[in-house]
Amino acid sequence: MAVLTAEMADVASSIDKALEALLPPVDGYEAQVFEAMRYAVLAGGKRLRPFLVLASAALFDVPTARATRVACALECVHTYSLVHDDLPCMDDDDLRRGMPTTHKKYDEATAVLAGDALLTLAFEILADEATHHEPLVRSELVLSLAHEAGAHGMVGGQMIDMLAETMKLDIGAVTRLQQMKTGALIRCSVEAGAIMGRATKDQKHALQNYAHDLGLAFQIADDLLDIDGDPAELGKAVGKDGDKETFVTLLGEERARMQATMLAEQAVIHLDSFDDKAELLRLLPHFVINRRS
Amino acid sequence: MAVLTAEMADVASSIDKALEALLPPVDGYEAQVFEAMRYAVLAGGKRLRPFLVLASAALFDVPTARATRVACALECVHTYSLVHDDLPCMDDDDLRRGMPTTHKKYDEATAVLAGDALLTLAFEILADEATHHEPLVRSELVLSLAHEAGAHGMVGGQMIDMLAETMKLDIGAVTRLQQMKTGALIRCSVEAGAIMGRATKDQKHALQNYAHDLGLAFQIADDLLDIDGDPAELGKAVGKDGDKETFVTLLGEERARMQATMLAEQAVIHLDSFDDKAELLRLLPHFVINRRS
Repeated sequence: MAVLTAEMADVASSIDKALEALLPPVDGYEAQVFEAMRYAVLAGGKRLRPFLVLASAALFDVPTARATRVACALECVHTYSLVHDDLPCMDDDDLRRGMPTTHKKYDEATAVLAGDALLTLAFEILADEATHHEPLVRSELVLSLAHEAGAHGMVGGQMIDMLAETMKLDIGAVTRLQQMKTGALIRCSVEAGAIMGRATKDQKHALQNYAHDLGLAFQIADDLLDIDGDPAELGKAVGKDGDKETFVTLLGEERARMQATMLAEQAVIHLDSFDDKAELLRLLPHFVINRRS
Repeated sequence: MAVLTAEMADVASSIDKALEALLPPVDGYEAQVFEAMRYAVLAGGKRLRPFLVLASAALFDVPTARATRVACALECVHTYSLVHDDLPCMDDDDLRRGMPTTHKKYDEATAVLAGDALLTLAFEILADEATHHEPLVRSELVLSLAHEAGAHGMVGGQMIDMLAETMKLDIGAVTRLQQMKTGALIRCSVEAGAIMGRATKDQKHALQNYAHDLGLAFQIADDLLDIDGDPAELGKAVGKDGDKETFVTLLGEERARMQATMLAEQAVIHLDSFDDKAELLRLLPHFVINRRS
């Protein structure tokens, strides 16, 4: 596991540098929205989605510089979703990664705009020639991200999550919600590596299954952290799920833990057809369910 | 001018149909975000940006079906910007196109998400093979839209506009604000036709200059309507600019009108190198400055 945590730290540091270069401060009256974008996206975090992009791209020997750009695009989208989800009209959170949320640091208007601009920047990065010399690959990356991040994916999941505050969901509905809300971007991160690497259909399928199980395991772990996590380690409030149904309320703590472990093991099995290059991806699921932040 | 208004009505009707087909209602708990997207985007409007896409694409005999998809993408982005700009934390508007704004009809969270999803959908439309068989064209369309709609363009313009409420801008700053806030998407609409049509560098340049002057003329007319427009005809409140500096406060009404007329005439001159196919584009600037809504 030490190999994985060292590699994740390396990825986080290279992503920070790349994001810094992609999003330099600007002059002019519009500077504030750039500052807010930088504040939100350069605040650290696990960089799980970038790690997935890089690790899946590495399966196919995709040059790291290209994969890093795509990883940054995914992180921009993830960050925009956090900035908007933290807004008073959504989850109304004051703290994120141990720091004031973007609307607390600036104001709501700036947070809405910074989120909008980060989402837009992600597509600008993907469509740029520097990301890949083949326009078809760029186009497929855009299509995949737009599909997974939109109303049929991440945004639709957040919509259901908002309604879940006043509506009792069953286990099927909660699973679907989470596959959309957090699963979609995790799936897209892994798929991005496959698109850049021109993976075969079977390889794509295997990676999709891996991402599916990893995403659910990740979310169950998240729900568990909401009941027994340490706010200081997490850098955000716990107990936020309130009356909402989660994997933990629906399955109970013990079964939720068992389910997460089973999904993590299953995720690894989906990688059987890959060689040693998949080692980091094989280590990740157990890291994800045992994390404390 | 009757030719133009008839053509604009035709475009509006074909765009309504195309948007309806691109954005069908869905089942499932996420239905609400789709309803809100449909509510916002199917509410009518002049469809000026779609008209510009179609008219500029027609210069190069681009098939209408393709241009219509791109026109819908531009309208999705325009609509998302209205939905977010109308939010209480931004311009706090209750009425748009004569109907309750999206956050009034639904709620703020749904409006934020519907805006996010419309922006994302625009990129999904552009990157889809159905939009153009050449991946390079799709990729260029995405790049252009992302650049013009992002923090260096439309979103940056809205950021400045928010700050302008507490800051006195001079004519140079107001011009730059408007070139970003409304000019960027107008420019992108015209450029989209040029990209699909594989225009020469000179043709692109001429169209950019046209869009530049048209965009400013449009905005001056908008500022004039804010002081003397009819809320019933406009479908939104007037006098909203309040203490903010606009072309009208900075130039005075008479000079603002002269400036709009001069820009409209200049826009038409930029089209000199085009043949009769540019007739609708030639009629548009004077329509734009004489509109009552």
